[in-house]
Amino acid sequence: MNSPALLDNLRVVLVATRNPLNIGAAARAMSNFGCTHLRLVNPYDPAYREARSAVGAAPVLASAEQFSTVAEAIADCALVVGTTAAGRRELHHHLCTLEACARIILQRLTRKRAGRRKTWHVALLFGSEKTGLSNEDLSHCHWLLRIPTRAEHRSMNLGQAVAVCLYELVRDAKAATRFTRALDKAEPATAGELERFTAILTEALRHSGFLDRRTVADADDRIRRLVRRLNLKSRDADMWTAIMRQIVWKLNATETPPPPLRKKLTS
Amino acid sequence: MNSPALLDNLRVVLVATRNPLNIGAAARAMSNFGCTHLRLVNPYDPAYREARSAVGAAPVLASAEQFSTVAEAIADCALVVGTTAAGRRELHHHLCTLEACARIILQRLTRKRAGRRKTWHVALLFGSEKTGLSNEDLSHCHWLLRIPTRAEHRSMNLGQAVAVCLYELVRDAKAATRFTRALDKAEPATAGELERFTAILTEALRHSGFLDRRTVADADDRIRRLVRRLNLKSRDADMWTAIMRQIVWKLNATETPPPPLRKKLTS
Repeated sequence: MNSPALLDNLRVVLVATRNPLNIGAAARAMSNFGCTHLRLVNPYDPAYREARSAVGAAPVLASAEQFSTVAEAIADCALVVGTTAAGRRELHHHLCTLEACARIILQRLTRKRAGRRKTWHVALLFGSEKTGLSNEDLSHCHWLLRIPTRAEHRSMNLGQAVAVCLYELVRDAKAATRFTRALDKAEPATAGELERFTAILTEALRHSGFLDRRTVADADDRIRRLVRRLNLKSRDADMWTAIMRQIVWKLNATETPPPPLRKKLTS
Repeated sequence: MNSPALLDNLRVVLVATRNPLNIGAAARAMSNFGCTHLRLVNPYDPAYREARSAVGAAPVLASAEQFSTVAEAIADCALVVGTTAAGRRELHHHLCTLEACARIILQRLTRKRAGRRKTWHVALLFGSEKTGLSNEDLSHCHWLLRIPTRAEHRSMNLGQAVAVCLYELVRDAKAATRFTRALDKAEPATAGELERFTAILTEALRHSGFLDRRTVADADDRIRRLVRRLNLKSRDADMWTAIMRQIVWKLNATETPPPPLRKKLTS
């Protein structure tokens, strides 16, 4: 999906987290999205490494680093981004949505330092569950990002906020566009395949007596349009034709065996 | 941000959830992103309505509906989407990434029914923490979506998965693009403003003795380039000019008072 090294230079910094379960949840999301560097500034409970909810997050928790100030935790980072629920107006001058901020972060994460092998480190800061990041914490940030929650209920759970931010960084917009395009192109049934199905369907409608009870002059046209509206893919048109052929054989109850099914029922 | 009614027709369906705290976490994320209709199929613990972790999620939990089968829970939905960690190959024929699937869901959520006021309901299914959605559950789905987690650690926490999916539905790609464009256009300092700052900075370097200790022929040019590399915005160029003017005044220690500061220090 995304390059496994994409988030290698990202540092997730949790500031004054109160609940060790939230540290575990953040670590799990980090592991899910391929981000391994967790930094903790003054966690309330140093027992966080045993966080029970952290399915699969043990390596991230084991290698987590502790710091006593935000300044120390971000000292080696060239871009520092804080997260905020942003009820406060005075933040607005350097506040952007998660999506816009992710573009800035990705630019930094993927740009190589001139003449060196190393790329830049980026810090992503999350405040405590109760109060978020303090004004002093925020003053260290180049940018503040806000997840687009409702004005009536802005504040997210910490582990969920970490998961959403990391998802935004790894989601591959180009891949999604390619998929949507591929979807539009996915082997549609040809007119010939549709016509074969239409013919056998019409036969089934005749033999079952369906058409006798609904006499219309343009029955054939109606059936044809009905089939076209199914937007069948090629493989499904084949399958429906085979199904209907079997039904017609049974309706006829002749002794001629039906033509063999070309394939098993698609899953 | 997003239209408050955008997710009105979305039904989040949790199937056989074991941990009531996860139901609470899912409900909190729903409330954050403006989705109010929660449906539960056979939750293990009917005490979920008291889920303690569900800060702000009480209204969603209070109005949650219970069903005993998936079929009943999705009966009124015109599009049913299942979530999966998708380790299993056989799913691939109708599996897409969250981002691609979100486009399909949004299309359905925003398309009006012909000649009616109502739009379509869409169901988004999440399986149990331990086993995910069963094959039978999945067979009800038009599409399966996968959050782009690492192959080595695919399975997400339930509450985090709900948060990520809803975020993808409400994030406004157009707004982010507008922001990025606006950012590029944001009032840069004019050459005149930069030159005013360059002049006062040069004066400060002279008066402080900085230039005496680093004699170079092209000092003025170097200082000019140094200032240009700051990429100052207009308001900040003004501020830096005022700061430097004050410093020069102090360095001169003359009796002439400095020109008054035009404004307070920017926040």
